[in-house]
Amino acid sequence: MRNPDELRALVEAYLSELVLTPELHGQAESMRYALSVGGKRVRPVICLATVEAAGCDAEVALPAAAAVELVHNFSLVHDDLPALDDDAVRRGRPSVWAEYGEAIAILAGDGLLAEAFRLALSYPTPAVGRELAQATLGMIGGQYLDITGNAPDEATLHKLKTGCLFAVSVALALWVAEVPLGEQAPWRAFGDELGLLFQIVDDILDGDGYVVTHGVDGARALADDAAERAHARLAAVPADTSVLADIVSGLSARTF
Amino acid sequence: MRNPDELRALVEAYLSELVLTPELHGQAESMRYALSVGGKRVRPVICLATVEAAGCDAEVALPAAAAVELVHNFSLVHDDLPALDDDAVRRGRPSVWAEYGEAIAILAGDGLLAEAFRLALSYPTPAVGRELAQATLGMIGGQYLDITGNAPDEATLHKLKTGCLFAVSVALALWVAEVPLGEQAPWRAFGDELGLLFQIVDDILDGDGYVVTHGVDGARALADDAAERAHARLAAVPADTSVLADIVSGLSARTF
Repeated sequence: MRNPDELRALVEAYLSELVLTPELHGQAESMRYALSVGGKRVRPVICLATVEAAGCDAEVALPAAAAVELVHNFSLVHDDLPALDDDAVRRGRPSVWAEYGEAIAILAGDGLLAEAFRLALSYPTPAVGRELAQATLGMIGGQYLDITGNAPDEATLHKLKTGCLFAVSVALALWVAEVPLGEQAPWRAFGDELGLLFQIVDDILDGDGYVVTHGVDGARALADDAAERAHARLAAVPADTSVLADIVSGLSARTF
Repeated sequence: MRNPDELRALVEAYLSELVLTPELHGQAESMRYALSVGGKRVRPVICLATVEAAGCDAEVALPAAAAVELVHNFSLVHDDLPALDDDAVRRGRPSVWAEYGEAIAILAGDGLLAEAFRLALSYPTPAVGRELAQATLGMIGGQYLDITGNAPDEATLHKLKTGCLFAVSVALALWVAEVPLGEQAPWRAFGDELGLLFQIVDDILDGDGYVVTHGVDGARALADDAAERAHARLAAVPADTSVLADIVSGLSARTF
């Protein structure tokens, strides 16, 4: 089993060599730009680590892992638009709309989402694509609740906006590794804990969200609880989940 | 076999009763609004008529037909945005962004696209979703060529921007009806002719596009040629294609 850094390198290599659909013509340039902005690739790394824990080579999960990363990037490209978060900078570079204009950025997000489904549908089972569609719809619902302030509560908001894509990173790996549906429950219970952990630590680093509602110490305690639950869920999975445990510890302790 | 009006009524009933993903929360309202604006439903009707010509009940193709209509509506919602065509009115009503604001409209398009894949993935074969992804990516490429003026020629532009979704309306029906891949070629050749016919007649009705480049009479002659080719392709399909022939004649003669 490979460690998270090795898995991340696999993801980067796969994304950098990914052949986008030729019919996109010049639209592909802005999509490549969006993907090249980088980031921690945490979702695809979780997907690959889950596949390896389930006893398969990470390589077979690369299209599924990349699909999740493309959905994540689609959401960033559209969230950055002036009509939504109005962010002209992402990770120190102009965001897609700031670099290519709003029209191309809207189409870039659309194209990333469609390419994500193309990748998810490269498997013989439609289950990979089905789970990705459900997760994407949940994420869009979360984004709606966020921008309208209509969320019934904090937990529902983050479960949708952040949690769906983390949970699906685990779920897609289960289909790729052909883990029978009847044996997926403990893995999925683990996946369901990751989004909240990621979100709380994100808010601690940014000084918003959970820090505003619970204070720094309160948010840190919630993050520690979430990490503890994730480790406990993982302990219930009948497999060598040591790399996934390292990822959980890394998510909890991250400082950027 | 049912006539085009009966098939259209099936599509309308299916769309009006379509249960969107609950996790979308209030975002679903703007998506329903987009779908309720109506239109001729020509793509889903072609899908259903193809399935019936291939010997199946139209009902089994309703999720696939609706998926194509949702992709079409996703493209309209995003095309109408101020950053793209800046259309505040669609079919006599406020467009989605004019009614709900730009942010909700961007998410509405995203949600329609994801719901389209959810519907396409309700079949046991991933082929339905695969074809839909390819067609969507082609359409996005066509939209890019249109707004940037980068199209190598008129035919490439329209084949992508309009043709992909017409061709896929036929192609999805073939997978739903389980027409073996080796027998799909004549059907697909027919599907490839529809987009151009639709586009030229659209331009004649709107007085733009092909009318600008070929004059009214020139455009009419091109439309007649396209209709003739579509009828000829249909004659090569070994099935009762009378309803599809009626649809071709209707597309050629339409006045709105």
